[in-house]
This record gives sequence, C-alpha cells and structure tokens, in this order.
Amino acid sequence: MSTRSTAKRADALRSIDAIVQAATECLGHNPDASLSEIASAAGVGRVTLYSHFASRAEVVDAALTRAIDQGNAALDAVDLTGDPQLALARLVDESWHLVDQARALLVAAQRELPPGRIRELHNGPAARVETLITRGRAEGAFRTDLPIPWLITVLHSIMKGAADEVRTGNLTPDRAAAHITATVLAAFTPPGKQVPEPDGER
Amino acid sequence: MSTRSTAKRADALRSIDAIVQAATECLGHNPDASLSEIASAAGVGRVTLYSHFASRAEVVDAALTRAIDQGNAALDAVDLTGDPQLALARLVDESWHLVDQARALLVAAQRELPPGRIRELHNGPAARVETLITRGRAEGAFRTDLPIPWLITVLHSIMKGAADEVRTGNLTPDRAAAHITATVLAAFTPPGKQVPEPDGER
Repeated sequence: MSTRSTAKRADALRSIDAIVQAATECLGHNPDASLSEIASAAGVGRVTLYSHFASRAEVVDAALTRAIDQGNAALDAVDLTGDPQLALARLVDESWHLVDQARALLVAAQRELPPGRIRELHNGPAARVETLITRGRAEGAFRTDLPIPWLITVLHSIMKGAADEVRTGNLTPDRAAAHITATVLAAFTPPGKQVPEPDGER
Repeated sequence: MSTRSTAKRADALRSIDAIVQAATECLGHNPDASLSEIASAAGVGRVTLYSHFASRAEVVDAALTRAIDQGNAALDAVDLTGDPQLALARLVDESWHLVDQARALLVAAQRELPPGRIRELHNGPAARVETLITRGRAEGAFRTDLPIPWLITVLHSIMKGAADEVRTGNLTPDRAAAHITATVLAAFTPPGKQVPEPDGER
C-alpha cells in the first residue's frame, strides 16, 4: 500500500514536471498556446493536467517560476566582481539573453498574472542587481543622486522596451544587447562623470 | 427637412462630444469604468452611446485620441529652442505631466487597444521628440552611437516604468519628473562626455 502510494506520487511528480516543461516550451514559442497543446506536448491527457493545475494562470505561473529559477542559475555563473561597469555589462548581457529567450512566456505572464506576482518572481534577479548597484555606488562608479529602486526600474524598463521593439520587428535581439548596455551604463553614470565608451566594436 | 437633419446632426455631434469627454474623465479616474457609467456621466442613454460607438474599444480609442490631441496642444507650448539638454528637460517635464494625468486612461488603452494603435496615436508626440533629438545630435549634445528610434524607445520606456511605479505606490508623481529627466539626460549623453548636473535642488 505504502509502495503503491509512493509510486503514485512519483507518477504525479513526473506528470507535473512534464507539464511545466512543456508549458515553458509551448508558451515560449506562442503566448497563446492552449492547455490542450501543452497537455499534448507533455504526453498527458487534459484530465491529468487539470488534476494538477486549477487554471491556465497556474500553468503560466509554474512555467515562469521554472524559467526564472533556471535564469537565476545562469545568472549565478556571471562574474560580478571587479570593475562595477564591466560587471554590470556582463549582467545585462546575460539577463537580456534570458529575457529574449523568455519573451513569449513573459507576454503570456503579463496577460495571465497580476503585476505584483511577476514582480515577486523577479525578486531573485532584482536582488542581484541591487547588490551590484550598491557596490558600484560605494566605489563611485554609479550615481547616488537617484534611489536604488529607481535605478532597478530603469534597467527593467529599458529591457522591457527592448523586448517590445524586438517583438514588433523594430530591433534585432543581438543589436539589442549592446544598445541596452550602452544606455544603462550611461543612465547609471554619476552627474559630472564621463559616460563610458563602449569597449570594442562600434 | 434640411433644417431638421441639420439639427439632428448637431444633436449627434453634441452627444458624441459629451460621451468622449465623459469617457476621458471616467477612464481617467478608473480604467475599468463601464460604458453605463460613461453614458450616465455624459447625460445620455446607453442606446444613444451604442448608436455612436460599436464597442468599448471604440470609446477608449476616442478618449485616448482626444487626450493625445489635447496633449499635443500642451506640448506645442513648450519652448524647444536653445540648449538641447534644457529643451529636453522641459519636454520631459511637460510630457510626464500629461502621462501622469492620463495614467488610468493609458491602462484602459493598453487593455483594449492593439499596441500598434497606441503607437500610431503617439506619432505626434514622438515626432516632436525626434526633431529635438536630431538637433541635439547635430549640436553634439546627444549621443550618435545609438539609433534615434532606440533613444525614443528609451524615453518612452522610462516614462512607462515611472507610471507603473507611481501606480503601485513606489514613487510619487512629483519626484518622478526629476528622476526621469536626470535619467534620460544621462542616457542621451555621448560616450566620453560628462553627464549633466541636475540644475537647482538636489
């Protein structure tokens, strides 16, 4: 009996995992992907999907949570030591790569989830940016005349603006990374200091 | 007969005008304002409203169109001559004032209208910014290493980010104007040049 319930639980976990993975992939291609498509991509029936998730919003939430967890793992690998401007450029570059990959999923999330929930899920990535901004301010690399939450808002807003421009075909994803970095580094420069020259190609 | 149809047409124009004005006010307070509320605020019946507007989206479109027309008139009064950085600061200040006033209406528009339509309605304000950026680049005040459409995207994204922060209670509208100006002036500064000091209070 205990063995059977263990096996059932293992089955359920496998199904949930397959559904969340399929949701991440399907919604990553098409923010309007239906629950039937997601169930089918996961190799489960709709009844199984509905036995684990009460609504489309719950599926989207689980997919975004997974994408952000994986994103956090990728961001952990970014070297945030040394020159704060170069560290910020590395962080922006990797963050944009993740946002660009998850663009369609983020559209689905903006439609299905309350803004407070999306913000809450981004607390991990936001904390990393905050730590770097705090160090950069202490070292004189970033401006201190504007509050830290505002600087984080600026970074997020510019990334979101870039994602919208890519979606409407006005910008290519690879040019976007350099644009965002150059803009954010300038925006964070203390008044009276020089805006950094982009290193390398121009 | 001709007199009667002239009178009927004048009646219809008055109703439409009252509906659009009521919509601008109602949606300006509450993006979820219903068509019944709008009809009642306009002093017309729902049947009259529906005889002029086929859907809620049409009402929202008409209200946003009027708000942007009035905004354009206000922006026409802004002095865009002289030092490009000071001119941009004046333009940002007045634009933010308009965005802040129309915050709830913009939320309604983002829900009801396709992004392409909202962008189209902003062509007037965007053209004004573009002219100023072009002049500022020619005079060496603004950066030329990033394309003009991207700089416009940056300005819009930061304003939208500020509007979201005001809506969630993380920022007060009056502090927002100074934050946006300081950030945009830095973001537009050419690499190798100094970020301007905010004039006046700090």
